[in-house]
Amino acid sequence: MNKTKFSLEQLTVAYQLLRWTVLVTPVAVVVGSLVALFLWLLEVVTQLRWQHEWLLFGLPLAGILIYWLYRLGGKQADRGNNLVMEEIHQPGGGVPARMAPLVLLTTIITHLFGGSAGREGTAVQIGGSMAGLIGKKMGLSPEDIRILLMTGIAAGFGAVFGTPLTGAVFALEVLAIGVMRYDALIPCLIASVFADIVCSAWGIHHTHYSITYISQSFIKEIPFIHLDLWLLGKVIVCGVAFGLSSFLFATLMHNIKHNANAYIKIPWLIPVAGGVVIIILSYIAGTTDYLGLGVSSKSSDGISILAAFDANSSVNDWSWLWKLVFTAITLGMGFKGGEVTPLFFIGATLGHTLALWLGAPVDLFAGLGFIAVFAGATNTPIACTLMGVELFGTNHVLYFAVACFTAYYFSGHAGIYSAQRLEVRKLR
Amino acid sequence: MNKTKFSLEQLTVAYQLLRWTVLVTPVAVVVGSLVALFLWLLEVVTQLRWQHEWLLFGLPLAGILIYWLYRLGGKQADRGNNLVMEEIHQPGGGVPARMAPLVLLTTIITHLFGGSAGREGTAVQIGGSMAGLIGKKMGLSPEDIRILLMTGIAAGFGAVFGTPLTGAVFALEVLAIGVMRYDALIPCLIASVFADIVCSAWGIHHTHYSITYISQSFIKEIPFIHLDLWLLGKVIVCGVAFGLSSFLFATLMHNIKHNANAYIKIPWLIPVAGGVVIIILSYIAGTTDYLGLGVSSKSSDGISILAAFDANSSVNDWSWLWKLVFTAITLGMGFKGGEVTPLFFIGATLGHTLALWLGAPVDLFAGLGFIAVFAGATNTPIACTLMGVELFGTNHVLYFAVACFTAYYFSGHAGIYSAQRLEVRKLR
Repeated sequence: MNKTKFSLEQLTVAYQLLRWTVLVTPVAVVVGSLVALFLWLLEVVTQLRWQHEWLLFGLPLAGILIYWLYRLGGKQADRGNNLVMEEIHQPGGGVPARMAPLVLLTTIITHLFGGSAGREGTAVQIGGSMAGLIGKKMGLSPEDIRILLMTGIAAGFGAVFGTPLTGAVFALEVLAIGVMRYDALIPCLIASVFADIVCSAWGIHHTHYSITYISQSFIKEIPFIHLDLWLLGKVIVCGVAFGLSSFLFATLMHNIKHNANAYIKIPWLIPVAGGVVIIILSYIAGTTDYLGLGVSSKSSDGISILAAFDANSSVNDWSWLWKLVFTAITLGMGFKGGEVTPLFFIGATLGHTLALWLGAPVDLFAGLGFIAVFAGATNTPIACTLMGVELFGTNHVLYFAVACFTAYYFSGHAGIYSAQRLEVRKLR
Repeated sequence: MNKTKFSLEQLTVAYQLLRWTVLVTPVAVVVGSLVALFLWLLEVVTQLRWQHEWLLFGLPLAGILIYWLYRLGGKQADRGNNLVMEEIHQPGGGVPARMAPLVLLTTIITHLFGGSAGREGTAVQIGGSMAGLIGKKMGLSPEDIRILLMTGIAAGFGAVFGTPLTGAVFALEVLAIGVMRYDALIPCLIASVFADIVCSAWGIHHTHYSITYISQSFIKEIPFIHLDLWLLGKVIVCGVAFGLSSFLFATLMHNIKHNANAYIKIPWLIPVAGGVVIIILSYIAGTTDYLGLGVSSKSSDGISILAAFDANSSVNDWSWLWKLVFTAITLGMGFKGGEVTPLFFIGATLGHTLALWLGAPVDLFAGLGFIAVFAGATNTPIACTLMGVELFGTNHVLYFAVACFTAYYFSGHAGIYSAQRLEVRKLR
């Protein structure tokens, strides 16, 4: 009896794993390749924008173009990440295949003309729409398509940041607040590992961040306590600040979107107004460093994510707030792209500033902000802790977790994805 | 409106965090201290047993003593970890406070006389029963006691292995198969970090394991692929083997327990018979290395968890199976202690053997087996991936995850904890 049960159950698992490996391979190849194309284009248009500063003045017109492309492409696709997540919660009309080219093209346009936006939203939408298309072509059941959509998110996320484990856990964790289900874990992991390999095989390299700080207690063996408690206290304080800035970002973006729709009656005027505001703001800020992706800057002494890891860079006390406002306006007023890379920027620069105030290691706290503001805004503390490990190495995993979990609690119950379900309240 | 919601929600969170910090502090101090006492006693009795080999012949009598102690202490306490988990799922009569001294004393007796057992079960039961006691003394509501019990598990686990993050995630993940809820995340993390600090402050040191292998692709920048695909394939193959050995262990232990109760009608004769079988088996095996904890061995060239990380040690092809049988008999026939350290032993020695067969790095695969067999048997793949990071550091987090998730899938739906709820099937 036990033996029968064994052979049946384990054979089923083996069969299912092989089946899913076969099913997710085309998803991984297509999504990994499209993400590679996307990242390459992003690099090209960023260089173009750096060489031709006047492109910024085209931002209002670019907004009209994006509005028009989505009008042409169909209203559903405009709902982006939320549509992918809703289709996983409750399969309905499916994720349209045209979402992938639409979001890719409009994100590239946004970046070419200087909108402040990210990459993950685009990669996730490419992943979701391609997975949906492949699932339909293969004639899968709705339940299988549901899992395939999750592998699409994992593949897109894993490939775009070069962090496959984070991609897989993110796909499971992002769907709901307060709970994570494991049923699609292995298909998601296979998809994100494959997609990352495919993306790398196209010659895409990911930015390398480095935290050289090593906690005291790792060097000298302190007899009592193998944790730097003072440092831990600072991490908690910063975790609260990271969570509040996630909350501020999500609230500001929702309010801008809501008010823009309420007060500007002609829809194509919304991105035009957004573009004009961005142009004005970049003059007030006196720099173009808050435009675009922000991973690196045009000038070697500019403000960027990489600069945030350097204690002597030109990152200032308000860099995080500038980026927050630029991004909330860009994405709240009709431009396209992800939220996550700007969240990295906001977190890394805020961590940089707080570290200088508190007398803490700047590179470690920039890394903590990088992952924790993202954890707070997307309600994915475990994926973000793992991202810290994948991007920055393992010595500081406890600090990564404390920062991400604290930010998760202090970011409120809203987050940037309206389709995320609140299943278990954060604290009772 | 938004402002009111902000201040209310964030202030509530801040208040709740402070409240839980206050509530879990006594739990962490008491549990951390008792775990320190337990680990110190464990070291003392292991040294005693190494010096006096004849103690093994006392094992059958020790079995009667343990049986009698539990009869005296009350039947409920005998249900151990499962009782703690059931009280979290469905608060009932509470976890009796006498569970802590009972399990501590009987585990020490088991180890003194050479039973093959672990530590985590004991630490978790100390944590659960002390948290229950403290919750009752403080007059908390049933819902708060439920969370406090989870912090007890986290504190016990975090302190006993020196891995606070793993302890916190384990406490959330172990309750159910296929789903993880986040509501007690921060209280658990606070408890496990504090308990680990308290335990260290008593002068307890944890064994240091080290993986020196560095994947090729991390050394030379291979242009295409930043993952060693060939190595990844070996990790998956071993993950299947790790999962099957988890399944074998859980099934064998359940069957031994079931059959012993069915065929041996006088209850105190069960541990006597178990003790006799262990004595006979240690003569057949020709070594005492499979007795006790097994972290290190009496002789410098013996078989142990530490030896499994060394390619030239005396670990042989069947070391994993020996330890599996020794432990299933010890714990299936009435002796006390945890399952996890023996699972580490089984996994590390199996990983060692498979690495030699497959031509893979022995230290890395010993580490993978260490965490993955445990992941399979307890259905906690994410906690175990994090444990890999906390114990072994290095750059292998993706391999940790692949091994743990694969083992999780291939271990079936049983696991070693009968009170674990199956909420979401592993694959559909």
